[in-house]
Amino acid sequence: MQQHVDTHGFIPITPKAPITASRHGGRAKCLQRLIRMGLPVPPTVALDFDTVRAIALDEFPDLAQLWATFGDDALVSVRPSGEVADWGGPGAILNIGMNDARHAALSARIGCAAANALYAQFVQSYAVQIARLDPEMFEIDISDAPPHLALLAAFEVAMDQPFPQDPVRQLADVLRSMARAWDGTSARLLRQARGAPADAGLGLVVQRMALGVGDAARGESGSGVIQFVDSETGLARLTGRYLSQSQGRAAVMAQPGALFLTADPRGAALQDRCPKIFAQLLSCGELCRLRLREEMQVEFTIDCDELFILDAVRAPRRTRAAVRIAVSLAEDGIIAEPEAVLRVDPAALSDLLHRQIDPAGPRDVLARGIPASPGAATGILVFSARAALDAAAREEDCILVRRETKPEDVRAMHSSVGVLTERGGATSHAAVIARGLGLPCVVGATGIRIDRKARVLITDTGRRFGEGDVVTLDGTTGNILVGRAPLLEPALDDAFQSLLGWADDARDIGVRANADTPAEARVARRFRAEGIGLCRTEHMFFEPGRMTAMREMIFAEAPEDRAAALTRLLPVQRADFTDLFRIMEGLPVCIRLLDPPLHEFLPTTRDGLLDLAEALDLPLSTVTERVTSLSEVNPMLGMRGVRLGIAVPEIYEMQARAIFEAAVAIGGDVAPEVMLPLVSAHREVELIARRVAAVASAVQAETGVTVCYRLGVMVETPRAALRAGDIAGRCAFLSFGTNDLTQMTYGLSRDDAGRFMAPYVAEGVFAEDPFLRLDLDGVGELLTLGATRGRAANPDIVLSLCGEHGADLSSIAFCRAASFDYVSCSPFRVPVARLAAAHLAIRSRQAAPA
Amino acid sequence: MQQHVDTHGFIPITPKAPITASRHGGRAKCLQRLIRMGLPVPPTVALDFDTVRAIALDEFPDLAQLWATFGDDALVSVRPSGEVADWGGPGAILNIGMNDARHAALSARIGCAAANALYAQFVQSYAVQIARLDPEMFEIDISDAPPHLALLAAFEVAMDQPFPQDPVRQLADVLRSMARAWDGTSARLLRQARGAPADAGLGLVVQRMALGVGDAARGESGSGVIQFVDSETGLARLTGRYLSQSQGRAAVMAQPGALFLTADPRGAALQDRCPKIFAQLLSCGELCRLRLREEMQVEFTIDCDELFILDAVRAPRRTRAAVRIAVSLAEDGIIAEPEAVLRVDPAALSDLLHRQIDPAGPRDVLARGIPASPGAATGILVFSARAALDAAAREEDCILVRRETKPEDVRAMHSSVGVLTERGGATSHAAVIARGLGLPCVVGATGIRIDRKARVLITDTGRRFGEGDVVTLDGTTGNILVGRAPLLEPALDDAFQSLLGWADDARDIGVRANADTPAEARVARRFRAEGIGLCRTEHMFFEPGRMTAMREMIFAEAPEDRAAALTRLLPVQRADFTDLFRIMEGLPVCIRLLDPPLHEFLPTTRDGLLDLAEALDLPLSTVTERVTSLSEVNPMLGMRGVRLGIAVPEIYEMQARAIFEAAVAIGGDVAPEVMLPLVSAHREVELIARRVAAVASAVQAETGVTVCYRLGVMVETPRAALRAGDIAGRCAFLSFGTNDLTQMTYGLSRDDAGRFMAPYVAEGVFAEDPFLRLDLDGVGELLTLGATRGRAANPDIVLSLCGEHGADLSSIAFCRAASFDYVSCSPFRVPVARLAAAHLAIRSRQAAPA
Repeated sequence: MQQHVDTHGFIPITPKAPITASRHGGRAKCLQRLIRMGLPVPPTVALDFDTVRAIALDEFPDLAQLWATFGDDALVSVRPSGEVADWGGPGAILNIGMNDARHAALSARIGCAAANALYAQFVQSYAVQIARLDPEMFEIDISDAPPHLALLAAFEVAMDQPFPQDPVRQLADVLRSMARAWDGTSARLLRQARGAPADAGLGLVVQRMALGVGDAARGESGSGVIQFVDSETGLARLTGRYLSQSQGRAAVMAQPGALFLTADPRGAALQDRCPKIFAQLLSCGELCRLRLREEMQVEFTIDCDELFILDAVRAPRRTRAAVRIAVSLAEDGIIAEPEAVLRVDPAALSDLLHRQIDPAGPRDVLARGIPASPGAATGILVFSARAALDAAAREEDCILVRRETKPEDVRAMHSSVGVLTERGGATSHAAVIARGLGLPCVVGATGIRIDRKARVLITDTGRRFGEGDVVTLDGTTGNILVGRAPLLEPALDDAFQSLLGWADDARDIGVRANADTPAEARVARRFRAEGIGLCRTEHMFFEPGRMTAMREMIFAEAPEDRAAALTRLLPVQRADFTDLFRIMEGLPVCIRLLDPPLHEFLPTTRDGLLDLAEALDLPLSTVTERVTSLSEVNPMLGMRGVRLGIAVPEIYEMQARAIFEAAVAIGGDVAPEVMLPLVSAHREVELIARRVAAVASAVQAETGVTVCYRLGVMVETPRAALRAGDIAGRCAFLSFGTNDLTQMTYGLSRDDAGRFMAPYVAEGVFAEDPFLRLDLDGVGELLTLGATRGRAANPDIVLSLCGEHGADLSSIAFCRAASFDYVSCSPFRVPVARLAAAHLAIRSRQAAPA
Repeated sequence: MQQHVDTHGFIPITPKAPITASRHGGRAKCLQRLIRMGLPVPPTVALDFDTVRAIALDEFPDLAQLWATFGDDALVSVRPSGEVADWGGPGAILNIGMNDARHAALSARIGCAAANALYAQFVQSYAVQIARLDPEMFEIDISDAPPHLALLAAFEVAMDQPFPQDPVRQLADVLRSMARAWDGTSARLLRQARGAPADAGLGLVVQRMALGVGDAARGESGSGVIQFVDSETGLARLTGRYLSQSQGRAAVMAQPGALFLTADPRGAALQDRCPKIFAQLLSCGELCRLRLREEMQVEFTIDCDELFILDAVRAPRRTRAAVRIAVSLAEDGIIAEPEAVLRVDPAALSDLLHRQIDPAGPRDVLARGIPASPGAATGILVFSARAALDAAAREEDCILVRRETKPEDVRAMHSSVGVLTERGGATSHAAVIARGLGLPCVVGATGIRIDRKARVLITDTGRRFGEGDVVTLDGTTGNILVGRAPLLEPALDDAFQSLLGWADDARDIGVRANADTPAEARVARRFRAEGIGLCRTEHMFFEPGRMTAMREMIFAEAPEDRAAALTRLLPVQRADFTDLFRIMEGLPVCIRLLDPPLHEFLPTTRDGLLDLAEALDLPLSTVTERVTSLSEVNPMLGMRGVRLGIAVPEIYEMQARAIFEAAVAIGGDVAPEVMLPLVSAHREVELIARRVAAVASAVQAETGVTVCYRLGVMVETPRAALRAGDIAGRCAFLSFGTNDLTQMTYGLSRDDAGRFMAPYVAEGVFAEDPFLRLDLDGVGELLTLGATRGRAANPDIVLSLCGEHGADLSSIAFCRAASFDYVSCSPFRVPVARLAAAHLAIRSRQAAPA
């Protein structure tokens, strides 16, 4: 009976051996599964994590006994077996045990040339990887005949001792070297960056070599790699290579003699040369899929017409393929749907929603910045909003380049295919708007300088790119490439839809979209958002015709004049909402009343002021004075939001009327929600709620149609969170605006944070950029306090999060824990949020006691 | 035996009657005390609050029985008796009971003319105040003889019925009218504004008239008012007037025949006419002082040589007098010292610390604004910093007028005697700096427009005041007066010092000063601050020579160049601290490291940029670009405070070195504290603490002197308060900067709040301006959380509050409750804070069970 218990620190892998991934590593466990499936795996021994730790300290198990498992004349390989494959590990070492005696025996069995080559390969590996000798001294020179003799001589010179002949000593050296490499600083940092814990262990597997080289007369020998799905698409397609007289992964290293696996017009195929072995490989793939419940990449060796399966790893895949594979496995009943959902990383999903730069294409990077909105786009450079609009009129794709964007650039952004800014961080104006529009965007570009007057972008290396030059922007990586880079189209195929449908079945928190325009609302609907969680109305006023009325309103002396200017905005605003309500029919639409300070609607340049003076028929000095008097030291903390609504009641009254009239006009199933921004005291809510209710009554009286709406508060000042108890009693919902809440909790403007955020995060002053990842400790506590107090005061209150953090896994986890009703995020991140929410729900059900 | 129990709703006031201020009002209680002292008070009956409430609803006590107390032929008066005199109440009604029958009887006793006058007076009061008839119809015309007949006729015409003859009916009408007047809306609002609760009650006192008019042959009759101290100074001085043949307060209404009380060169005196009665009045004053333990103003009537004391109220007094009176009573052993401390309102104290406009002088108000820093000053108007410096060079007092002040105006503010700004609120830059400097300041002036180019201030009424015109600024009231108004000097006399000394004996929380300059430190020391709680170092860099080095530092390309520029600042900065430490010797000095963003040190005008380009020998474009690149959207939330300290380590290192070298140079008893501004994460504290410690070690190594210091954190972001537990373990003190904390908690910039704060508070959206009165509900909760968590993590942590709220009673109460170690405020508010803290301590000891 075979030895099962690894009291000796090692254990032969057999179907029933007590092998676990958490003690022996993923590779050892996978090999056991292959063995259980009856696949022809050569004899393999696993060394557990503790044994490998001891080996690093020179405490070895009984290696002679271990070796005895393989037989005296065997050669062996050692491969790493970490708990998770992705954590890395030292490279494999092949042909251990090779010495003069075995060389002689092998020469007789497989021929001199093959035996020489194996010996040379082993001496080289040992010298370079184990003895750490100069690689240049151990290059295999095929003119040396036989090559191993030159290498053995070189080894003796370098080490002042002959090459070790004792296989056990060789094995010990290899094991010790691999154990210590795992403890090296760079290996440790690398795997920790990939999520490994500080004490992650390494297992090792020692496997009898299937040689793959030998006398061709005795049959086919060689090695290869086979995979059953396409790594790009995930569709069933046989890929891989086979190389006669080779070992390891030599076949896939673009060797000239390598065969295709299946019949191929480009050259010979294994299918033709060894049909029986090919058939064996196919059934092996099928078996893996069914029993391992995964698409694997399999490493195999043919030794004198006999197939050996050396190893199998999860087939590498891009996100599109990951989705297809998971869905296909679930559709075939091999895995459950929730399992398929868990197989796809939510963060990777956004790759599918946008065009991507083809990784296979050539690239000339002219600058890099912060990737602020994913996707790739090619267009001509334009340096002003005007030029962007002109380009759009010519139907020419353009990339808008600005120092930073302002609300008046939003129209130009609509006309562009991508946005590049010199300043700003991941939550700057440009970034937020671009994400909303689904436009690729790179902000805080380093290594370039923008000369706006000359309309030229100059790199630190002196390259100049002017208006009209073509570049490609990669908002996924932050690269800006010269010229037109090849792009891959987005992939919202049936597999994507199925997976997201299962995600929706699984998740237990709502997902809405932040959408301001009909275009965004359509994207939201396409991505199956359960409503609009945040419709910012300010963008609606930046279109030329509306801007004029807006400015007249600002310049009005009397409330009547203000009301008159606003009356002209009423029909367009009503039309905006009618569009939105129609698109979102049956779903709630949460409309935030006007938020930005009035000076954002006024020009700042002399030309703009002149134009305005002409348009309003006022002296330039009056216009300038009014603009100056409205300017603010800290606009973020100024006369905006509900403060504006209280000071200039006509604005909110017009907006409320537009909302209610639009709802009446639709006549159908509309659930408008009216949200008040920048609240800091409950009395603000009372005042506005009363005015909004009066408008609702008026509209109801005028139309005879019952106006249903809910009024809520955007919690974005720390005080609103602290006083949520007072506020919740006076409204129907609280939506936490984590962008502003983060700014105020940290005392940190997102527009100005770009200057030091990168070094701050690099030096670990902040663990993460709090605008990218919700700060659970500080901002999170305010959310918790706000939610708890709000719910205590009003058990029916609807709670949500509508900041840019809405699609982030940790934010969603936080919101689930706090029993929020929904999160709201950019339309293009809705699928990410749906999937992330599903992951959390499935995992928490898995963790819950049955 | 007399009737004591007021089961009938009224009760005669006797020494043992159960009269309480809380049921019968302060006047009733005071009259009882006068009676107990044996003073000749006419018979008086008190009606309690409940009875008066019932009367308002037409439910009367048995008035016939009440009247029986006074005798059938008496006349009576009714006076209000609210719980607190300051809450107001209806005016007194005299001579009730007058009718044809009594008129006839009185005519016989005191003469026709006197009886006619009394009847006319009563008919007039009744018609106008009770029956609410047109006052014009009831003016007493002395040509009508007898006047009462014309009035009785007028009454009958107006009311279509004769004047009521039944005294009980008259009394009922008067009582009902007064009871209902108390319930009127305007009376209610007025008394609530003075602090009365919504359900404040009114008592009434009915007193038999001492007539004060009568047959001169039968002896002297008349009425007067006497007071024994000066209302302005509080020094013993007899004031008041006496008028023969008069009633009520007629004597003090500047009547031509009124007598002085004591011998006076200006005219005849009661002392000479009635020496015995005068002596009686003097002993009455002495008795009041001893037994009522207060300086009273006494209303008296002489009826046929017989003295009656009708009423006594607390003598009115300005703050200076209040201090003197309280100290004098305590020094005479009449009240205890803590009681004297409680007698003076802390808020009123600041009147004493500054010059005041003489209330008796003439005034021509040209505009009003927000009173931002108390005191008054006269000077010429100047419209630029330059002009202010020029005026100072000419030794001419000037008032600096700006749209708003910036850090670069601070020197000009030092050179001015007052500051007026068009914009800003009570905590704008101008206000904060002016309070620190003790300069009168008015901000947010309404009704004027400043034309900076023409250097002229134009009022809404079209008056123009140019540079050089003299105005007087009243920072206590917010008035701006034309020309040179007469001023009263501040009063820091011995009484003030005694009172504050007793306050220090009583209080149990420390008081430090916010002081940036030697001048401010000297004020702090003079006002006995227990150290400097906040020394803002940025002002130190705005002097011309330093500004240049600062700007060179900002423009330096390499760290070495930065360090070189800073090295030039080191000696001046060291000298700054040496001065401060010398002035504050023996007391702690808490120095906040540089806080403002660097762009505050750069010019914004084209001329300034040109000057700077010349000074630095750089192209204008380079200077402009750098200035632009440093500009921020929201400077309050930008690259400032500890963020600057981390990004440009040389600045804090230079400052730390200057502090430590100054401490070593003093060699004496110096306790420097180093405070980090704008902290939001504990790692910031760790990083800077390490660097500061390195500087301390270096200075210690260089000088051989041990450098002692404490490092602490200014808690001014909501996150720092929430994470105070993390932070407190890494420092020695936490000082809550409530200015910035309020800004961030509300999402409200104090620079921009001026535009809507006044209407916001007026409409009750905010109960108070949170920059003036600490917001206990929101900001206060963050303080509580921060203090609790800080102390839990580090029981030795020193806690304090150093915002502008530091001297406010409610803030100090909050800090005492949270066991803070000290509060810190503007030097000129230190006495206010000392007194307020004493009040709280004394009251809490009084409230504590014995």
